[in-house]
Amino acid sequence: MSRLDEVTRGRILFGGDYNPEQWPEETWHEDVRLMRDAGVNSVTLGVFSWAKLEPRPGAREFGWLDRLMDLMHENGIGVVLATPTSSPPPWMGRLHPETLPRDEDGRTEWWGGRQHFSHSSAVYRRYAAAITEDLAARYGGHPALTMWHINNEYCTFDWGDEAAGTFRRWLQDKYGTLEALNAAWGTAFWSQGYGDWDEILPPRRAHYMKNPTQVLDFRRYTSDMLLECYAAERDIVRRHTPHLPVTTNFMPMWVGQDAWKWVTEEDVVSVDLYPDPRDPFGAQNGALVQDMTRSQAGGGPWMLMEQAAGPVNWRGVNHPKARGLNRLWSLQAVARGADAVCYFQWRQSRQGAEKFHSGMVSHAGEAGRIFQEIKGLGAELAGIGPEVTGSPIAADVAVLHEWNAWWAGAQEGRPSSEVDYPQVVRAWHRALWEAHVTTDFAHPEHDLSAYRLVVVPQLYLLTDAAIDNLLSYVRGGGTLVCGFLTGVADEDDRVRPGGMDARLRELFGIRTLHEWWPLEAGESAGCDGFVGTLWSEELEAEGADQVIPYKGGELDGLPAVLRKGRAWYVSTLPEPPALRDLVADVAAGAGVRPVLDGLPAQVEAVRRGDLLFVFNHGRETVTVEVPGTHRDLLTGEQVAGAVELERYGAAVLAR
Amino acid sequence: MSRLDEVTRGRILFGGDYNPEQWPEETWHEDVRLMRDAGVNSVTLGVFSWAKLEPRPGAREFGWLDRLMDLMHENGIGVVLATPTSSPPPWMGRLHPETLPRDEDGRTEWWGGRQHFSHSSAVYRRYAAAITEDLAARYGGHPALTMWHINNEYCTFDWGDEAAGTFRRWLQDKYGTLEALNAAWGTAFWSQGYGDWDEILPPRRAHYMKNPTQVLDFRRYTSDMLLECYAAERDIVRRHTPHLPVTTNFMPMWVGQDAWKWVTEEDVVSVDLYPDPRDPFGAQNGALVQDMTRSQAGGGPWMLMEQAAGPVNWRGVNHPKARGLNRLWSLQAVARGADAVCYFQWRQSRQGAEKFHSGMVSHAGEAGRIFQEIKGLGAELAGIGPEVTGSPIAADVAVLHEWNAWWAGAQEGRPSSEVDYPQVVRAWHRALWEAHVTTDFAHPEHDLSAYRLVVVPQLYLLTDAAIDNLLSYVRGGGTLVCGFLTGVADEDDRVRPGGMDARLRELFGIRTLHEWWPLEAGESAGCDGFVGTLWSEELEAEGADQVIPYKGGELDGLPAVLRKGRAWYVSTLPEPPALRDLVADVAAGAGVRPVLDGLPAQVEAVRRGDLLFVFNHGRETVTVEVPGTHRDLLTGEQVAGAVELERYGAAVLAR
Amino acid sequence: MSRLDEVTRGRILFGGDYNPEQWPEETWHEDVRLMRDAGVNSVTLGVFSWAKLEPRPGAREFGWLDRLMDLMHENGIGVVLATPTSSPPPWMGRLHPETLPRDEDGRTEWWGGRQHFSHSSAVYRRYAAAITEDLAARYGGHPALTMWHINNEYCTFDWGDEAAGTFRRWLQDKYGTLEALNAAWGTAFWSQGYGDWDEILPPRRAHYMKNPTQVLDFRRYTSDMLLECYAAERDIVRRHTPHLPVTTNFMPMWVGQDAWKWVTEEDVVSVDLYPDPRDPFGAQNGALVQDMTRSQAGGGPWMLMEQAAGPVNWRGVNHPKARGLNRLWSLQAVARGADAVCYFQWRQSRQGAEKFHSGMVSHAGEAGRIFQEIKGLGAELAGIGPEVTGSPIAADVAVLHEWNAWWAGAQEGRPSSEVDYPQVVRAWHRALWEAHVTTDFAHPEHDLSAYRLVVVPQLYLLTDAAIDNLLSYVRGGGTLVCGFLTGVADEDDRVRPGGMDARLRELFGIRTLHEWWPLEAGESAGCDGFVGTLWSEELEAEGADQVIPYKGGELDGLPAVLRKGRAWYVSTLPEPPALRDLVADVAAGAGVRPVLDGLPAQVEAVRRGDLLFVFNHGRETVTVEVPGTHRDLLTGEQVAGAVELERYGAAVLAR
Repeated sequence: MSRLDEVTRGRILFGGDYNPEQWPEETWHEDVRLMRDAGVNSVTLGVFSWAKLEPRPGAREFGWLDRLMDLMHENGIGVVLATPTSSPPPWMGRLHPETLPRDEDGRTEWWGGRQHFSHSSAVYRRYAAAITEDLAARYGGHPALTMWHINNEYCTFDWGDEAAGTFRRWLQDKYGTLEALNAAWGTAFWSQGYGDWDEILPPRRAHYMKNPTQVLDFRRYTSDMLLECYAAERDIVRRHTPHLPVTTNFMPMWVGQDAWKWVTEEDVVSVDLYPDPRDPFGAQNGALVQDMTRSQAGGGPWMLMEQAAGPVNWRGVNHPKARGLNRLWSLQAVARGADAVCYFQWRQSRQGAEKFHSGMVSHAGEAGRIFQEIKGLGAELAGIGPEVTGSPIAADVAVLHEWNAWWAGAQEGRPSSEVDYPQVVRAWHRALWEAHVTTDFAHPEHDLSAYRLVVVPQLYLLTDAAIDNLLSYVRGGGTLVCGFLTGVADEDDRVRPGGMDARLRELFGIRTLHEWWPLEAGESAGCDGFVGTLWSEELEAEGADQVIPYKGGELDGLPAVLRKGRAWYVSTLPEPPALRDLVADVAAGAGVRPVLDGLPAQVEAVRRGDLLFVFNHGRETVTVEVPGTHRDLLTGEQVAGAVELERYGAAVLAR
Repeated sequence: MSRLDEVTRGRILFGGDYNPEQWPEETWHEDVRLMRDAGVNSVTLGVFSWAKLEPRPGAREFGWLDRLMDLMHENGIGVVLATPTSSPPPWMGRLHPETLPRDEDGRTEWWGGRQHFSHSSAVYRRYAAAITEDLAARYGGHPALTMWHINNEYCTFDWGDEAAGTFRRWLQDKYGTLEALNAAWGTAFWSQGYGDWDEILPPRRAHYMKNPTQVLDFRRYTSDMLLECYAAERDIVRRHTPHLPVTTNFMPMWVGQDAWKWVTEEDVVSVDLYPDPRDPFGAQNGALVQDMTRSQAGGGPWMLMEQAAGPVNWRGVNHPKARGLNRLWSLQAVARGADAVCYFQWRQSRQGAEKFHSGMVSHAGEAGRIFQEIKGLGAELAGIGPEVTGSPIAADVAVLHEWNAWWAGAQEGRPSSEVDYPQVVRAWHRALWEAHVTTDFAHPEHDLSAYRLVVVPQLYLLTDAAIDNLLSYVRGGGTLVCGFLTGVADEDDRVRPGGMDARLRELFGIRTLHEWWPLEAGESAGCDGFVGTLWSEELEAEGADQVIPYKGGELDGLPAVLRKGRAWYVSTLPEPPALRDLVADVAAGAGVRPVLDGLPAQVEAVRRGDLLFVFNHGRETVTVEVPGTHRDLLTGEQVAGAVELERYGAAVLAR
Repeated sequence: MSRLDEVTRGRILFGGDYNPEQWPEETWHEDVRLMRDAGVNSVTLGVFSWAKLEPRPGAREFGWLDRLMDLMHENGIGVVLATPTSSPPPWMGRLHPETLPRDEDGRTEWWGGRQHFSHSSAVYRRYAAAITEDLAARYGGHPALTMWHINNEYCTFDWGDEAAGTFRRWLQDKYGTLEALNAAWGTAFWSQGYGDWDEILPPRRAHYMKNPTQVLDFRRYTSDMLLECYAAERDIVRRHTPHLPVTTNFMPMWVGQDAWKWVTEEDVVSVDLYPDPRDPFGAQNGALVQDMTRSQAGGGPWMLMEQAAGPVNWRGVNHPKARGLNRLWSLQAVARGADAVCYFQWRQSRQGAEKFHSGMVSHAGEAGRIFQEIKGLGAELAGIGPEVTGSPIAADVAVLHEWNAWWAGAQEGRPSSEVDYPQVVRAWHRALWEAHVTTDFAHPEHDLSAYRLVVVPQLYLLTDAAIDNLLSYVRGGGTLVCGFLTGVADEDDRVRPGGMDARLRELFGIRTLHEWWPLEAGESAGCDGFVGTLWSEELEAEGADQVIPYKGGELDGLPAVLRKGRAWYVSTLPEPPALRDLVADVAAGAGVRPVLDGLPAQVEAVRRGDLLFVFNHGRETVTVEVPGTHRDLLTGEQVAGAVELERYGAAVLAR
């Protein structure tokens, strides 16, 4: 899936979004001087240039971009060229108001921000295709061009009338007949039976809870419609430049796009990653996104398309990155498979909605701490690039994650609004991260046989094929550990008999799932040896080999954790240390080892190819024992037996 | 008012909403087997069947319902047949968008949920009448049919254009002239004088606070319009089946319907009751609704139309019912006058918005704890039915509650948003419940002379007739205890001179009400012997016989509680134990006794007819002293002097 | 700027809004009796009388107002006559729906409240001009008339279509060309370049953050459009009565009106002031508004147009004023320059949205505590009037405040949503108030040379002219103390190079502003000797004479406070006592003295002309040392060396 190596050719891509249209041309030359100074070898141009390229309908203004492409080329900087279709010019909304999206309540999303296009608008798509065509024709042969970047962070829903039409078309393609749709949506309930396709609408504002399968299909449809927009532009550029890879940048684990499906349509997988510098588990959160993106890239190298050199501007309080943090998190991305370390954006804007989002060159300019650190990082990446790029990360563990399960599980009338799918996934990934076990992510229908351990944090919805896959994985010798609210519904969000799939119950040794006992925020459920949070269950075991019971309360003595052979079921969310220990034990039993033994808590270690990356995410200096003798690629020094890492320190150790 | 005895004939109705259209016909037979097993003798059919009955405009599909009616009859199960008018089919919204309601902000409530009909739509009403007519004609003579159930939980407001027309018509009927309307609404303020009926709108979104009497009349109008919808359907079914009673199911103490007015149009009063299993005062909350529903039924038996056998799905965190709780609360309803114990719904759905709302048969099926407990309850109800049904509950106390007072008191620009009318009513009812005193509810214009004690938690708005009624009640020897914010406004929400009706002030010994001193959340006002919450007042007494003063703070020494003869005024909300003791003292002074002396805190006792129901709402076993010798109808055993009740235990004691 | 003395002529105006259309005419005579009893000498008529004056389009009903004007005149009460244009009659919205404003989401603000007019509606403006013309023609010569009051609390935004047109016109006037607008708004970012004026809209709901300069210009435009409405009516009345002053009442430091601009169009500056009686710093908050209003009036006397004698009705919990508080805060306003002490409203309403807003005559009537205290205050004001009116307040300190800075600083994508401009201004004013230093407010482009000390709490946006002004002020010998987030942006909200204006950095001795470190709510930054809140900064000093460093944390040792000569920069918000001490030290260094030495904490002292006002805002009696011998105008007694003030006590001391 990854064609990134065609671009990197031994160098880690380093650079970022470059929006020179915001600056006078004299600044461009200053920019190039600083880019060279910092080792920048790649910039992304044109992301928000539509109004500049097409100031009136059908007009074309390419001169400025010609000059920039040439300037980049002259300076040895490759260009990732973006189609500008994520932000249509004001004239489009004025002349064609039907291109504007409508929200659930019927409110128009006007121009004046960005991403104000309806994926379903034929007019929008026509204009988008035309500008893409002309860009590809003009720059397809330009020597600076290295890759295509389609649109930007696709994310716009639409409940409007033109979308109602495409939603019907999508449903017709999926279901064929209204009978099939009525059956899948369960419209017998609440008198929702459809007698005509034209009766079907996007799930707009209603008096009470909406049909959950309609909402689920609307999510699937929205992801697919955005993918259609992507594919249409990709096909155009691919026609002009079959030799160049194409990508679009994901937001990290974003709810709106089924990335497993999208990545089959990409040549390079790229992601935008913005952990909160204040998050005490920011590094783990970053690792999660990195592991997921690498897995979406089929294990191959991926592109960190955007990160912030300092603060962002869209949180309530936007914290800067402390000295060293940007370097640390950038090297972490490389360790976990990134062969491109890029930023939004090169030069911090002086105007507009994102002027308080940092850039590689901040408002403080060349003398500012941000640029000085960027320069240092550029040099280091240049140094390790040849030894790193293209090399793989091996993992014995896979965490299963799937969008349909997420979407269906988040429905309105669910058992507990405290259960937040991403938080549950994050809790399990954190347990593995804290156990120093490297993990991949996988789709529940993927071939899992290469993994020693498969972890299912929560897959509320599972297809029959996925269930078969899990069963045969265990049957084939794999170890499976599974969190609660898994296997409840089929692909139409129809609850499976017994409230949980019977084969899965059999697998774990559950006879009857009597009741769920969701917990209030802050409430806990005592278990034998640990404390559970978020959820508990009234289960009747049958055939389980081992059981950890609940202690006290209404569930006293009933099973909290069940094991039957190599299949584990965990009916609550153990508090972090308990979950870490549980996961570590199960992993050990499955023959899975931590990357290094005896690692301190805040230290992360990752093997990529022949290299061992070691990171200190803490603020105190630590000594990390590393058996054998290595050379630290960052310092060039020999390391024997142990390496000392200062606050936010990193080592890249080669044998 | 209650014609429920025509249906029960010595049996407690036991069953629930049955939505067989969600299931294949083979499941119907399995359902019947389980119903018989559980002692189910009544089901409600057709609540959400409109799209199934009328899949296209004017079409009729009755075959499936014919089969079901026959099946029920063959198995001795009575049918409460619902008109399906609470959830119009999708075709109606598509063909007649004017049938859809609009909210305050002008937003449409689309189909896709339920209850998306405008009470004012002539088209909706025409379709609703037609399907009702045909249902009544077809099934009026069916031997399974026992009762009619009109619509379901009427609750839809409408601010749209067709509603504007019916609002004007309603106002014309009420006021006759614009002059009268302008006077009643006080439109001289803020330049709101209306010069033409067509200038009047529902109280839609405005720049600043709306006219409170307009809002009040809109609430009255909405309740009346929904009642018109109900009455139109009731008239149709009554024409076909004058021998069968008609009901519609209330939501418990719901803000939108003036139930005192509605019950005069019903043959049977029914209610849906869903206390939170986690609410430490869930039993008291249930008792409140049960007392209110019984009182609305004129003291006669009433129908518990819906409850949940386990969790619901519309709270943030939806807790199951612990073992025994469903039985306990069901028996409590019987003790307080219910002759029907029914559920939403028989079999838990696998699809749709309410699939995580429990059923009598849960996802766990026959083996699940829920069904097993249902079976036990069915047997017990069958056992006590003959001794219970039709018998009355005697109460010496009435709590006054009235919707217009609630509505007016909840206006935007009020003295304190912390004052929540239902919470105040609940606090006073809880005081009586904790004092083990059985109470009715009454309308302030009802004849109160049969009660020894009348409690007014808060009646911000009182008509002249209601004030006369209270005065003559006290004059006639009754004891009155009255909370703050009572008698402030007349029926047009016009503040009475002095800020509180002069006759009421005279009654309680209040010379001048200088100021209200509302309290912040969590703030309290010291009083002599207790602590007040929520509210305090700067009063000048004159002629009061006894006064409990405020202590400390700005009101130090001023009267907090005043008594003049048999009339008490309480200008704050004493904390629960203080309010309980105050109420118990006043009750004792009025000759009102608890049901039993010396009851432990968590134990509830109620006399119904000759039976004494005793409940343990706690989790510890208690021994309750019951003078004399009884037979416990649930166990068949003799009880002499005392009965031991386990956690959630119940006894039904006959002499 | 102040022509108030033409009305007061030695008397403090005392009275309030009078809305007699709410009452029968017999009440008018009762009102006059009570007004005379209370010393009322001024009422405001007609604020909400449009529907009464023009019950149908073009109709005129003046008879009732004729009688009232005469009645007032006969009783020696002056009339401030309002144009009724803040609340159009219902017929206007019905016949001309385009006069109704639309909000950001496109929702109409319907009639039924007040202020539901679009400033941009030609129809509204035509009707408003006509009724104003006729009022001025009819009453311009009436002997009761003393002043004109235009509209009421202008505050209505409009995002609708007619507003889109006036927004474009306003932008054309400002920018001349689209190129200039595109440059100012930075539309190169996010593809927002405008190619046609008709593409420009008010900043309506968008998919993501809006263009901040568009939003800023929309705020400027809205203020200007409302000012156009005001000026149009003012011009009409001025044509009829050039001898009478004209005002409109501000809300205190309200975000929507650039009051510095407005006051140049007024003859009298008036304000509505409603501190929360529960606010422990209510007195300081009042002082701030009073200082600001006086400064807007050019130091001349101003009018307290509205305050509440007791509670208001628009807070969550509406607290009454404790005994004495209304008098205390009224005298405080006089001390700080008010020559008019007026109320909303004379008689508390019995109906309508504001019936729980107190009046000078409350629901309790003549016997109520409120009216009794009003009577006492009226007598006192009559007593001190001749010695007070017209006399000035001298201040050595100016606090700079400016609306454009506020507006721009509050943009969506800002560094910290915790930073709230009014709270920051209030914190600095509080420091001065607690240091017993009297302060003016000033615009950053005002001549500041008369002040010894200038305080800039926060001016995110500063024009070049303002920066020049500050620099020349310091150059001229002035002392400047400046809070963080100042001088960041130019007048188009373009960030100045370096993230803060280079000349300002040079002024304070800042070489590089590396990063802002905003603090979370409740978080603090240790500094040497105090604790900072809300904000901190990573600065590099150069040339500063003195530095207080941060202590601990990421910024340890870096400068928190810098002084270079007479220029101070404070990069955090010190906790209140520290800010008070810092301000007091800087003030002392600049030769600024407190009003009196050794004042207790809760005591406020203000000199107005030759009088010394002393207030005790505490609840305990205090003795205040006042050197020399004075006569207390309130008691007539001699005061030698010290004055004793009871809770909420006041003294007005003359030599």
